[in-house]
Amino acid sequence: MAPKYKLMYFDGRGRAEISRMLFHVAGVDFEDKRVKREDWPALKEKMPQKAMPVLEIDGKTMHCQSMAIARYLAREFKLYGKSSMEAFYIDEILDTVGDLSQEGMKTFFEKDESKKAELMKKFLEETVPRQLGFLDAQIKKYGKNGFAVGSQISVADIVIFTGTEMPKIKEASLKFPNLFENLKKTEENPKIKKWLKERPKTEF
Amino acid sequence: MAPKYKLMYFDGRGRAEISRMLFHVAGVDFEDKRVKREDWPALKEKMPQKAMPVLEIDGKTMHCQSMAIARYLAREFKLYGKSSMEAFYIDEILDTVGDLSQEGMKTFFEKDESKKAELMKKFLEETVPRQLGFLDAQIKKYGKNGFAVGSQISVADIVIFTGTEMPKIKEASLKFPNLFENLKKTEENPKIKKWLKERPKTEF
Repeated sequence: MAPKYKLMYFDGRGRAEISRMLFHVAGVDFEDKRVKREDWPALKEKMPQKAMPVLEIDGKTMHCQSMAIARYLAREFKLYGKSSMEAFYIDEILDTVGDLSQEGMKTFFEKDESKKAELMKKFLEETVPRQLGFLDAQIKKYGKNGFAVGSQISVADIVIFTGTEMPKIKEASLKFPNLFENLKKTEENPKIKKWLKERPKTEF
Repeated sequence: MAPKYKLMYFDGRGRAEISRMLFHVAGVDFEDKRVKREDWPALKEKMPQKAMPVLEIDGKTMHCQSMAIARYLAREFKLYGKSSMEAFYIDEILDTVGDLSQEGMKTFFEKDESKKAELMKKFLEETVPRQLGFLDAQIKKYGKNGFAVGSQISVADIVIFTGTEMPKIKEASLKFPNLFENLKKTEENPKIKKWLKERPKTEF
């Protein structure tokens, strides 16, 4: 019997959206549990690292770490490349987008206004072009027909898509032709298109 | 023919040590290229993300992102668990230790002394016990005979070992019996023991 998946997270895209999209692209049923802020303190103590997302399988085991969850689902759903080398290219992309998101968050959450302006300048003028430039080169070298790696959709396409949703990053991506084509390709995937229309509208 | 591996990094453990240990545990030859600070500016421009570590294979392709490199080597060397589920447990550990190291670095590099003291207190009193507690529980549930996951050494054992080398974290690990047993088990591995004796002594 197919496993019963329950993905627990807050009502936002955040660190759960990659896994949600993997479920939708694979056409695999799951419970998209969105925990209300007021219910979180009580639930928190039961979570393996007192954090979410958490993936529960068959009501028994609970797994944490958003990217560990995404990698597992990608492996199970055959969305992790066709070879160990393709998985390597995909991991390079996943970790690069991870770095980009982390730098973006650090900038976004800086409280000191003058320091924030300085961080934002560095982020937009150095980090974003360097990292998007890497993604563009990676897609050009290892992707076919608009896909990020190989000739079919993988977790890399999904991670690039979710990692560039922030308006300023999206805007910057227009300058990178391979990346831009890849983002269009992902958006045109019928299952993704359907999910983007249906998914709850949240700020993050 | 076996691939020719060249791992490029600075003369330190840092973000390359996990991969170096994977090579040693697997008994696979590689060039442990340690770039001098004065040679870095010229080399930097040739690196895919203007950063190291970089893994060069057969003098042709260059791969970046330290954990993407480690995951690839672990897969190739059969040090990534015996099933997709074991790889999931391993990834949970890798990402948890990654979070721990990142928090540690943030604390270490904070320049404001009073903020640093505050961050250090939080790191040692909250982050370290929570994350080491998770590792301890994970080893207890999924490891056998002292190994982190399953009944043989994997990249998880190596990551736990390198991620707890900082004296204050090492000291804290004494309180977690499964983690402590695991660290001893890793240290006793003959190939690791040999490498620990031989490796260049560096501060980080």
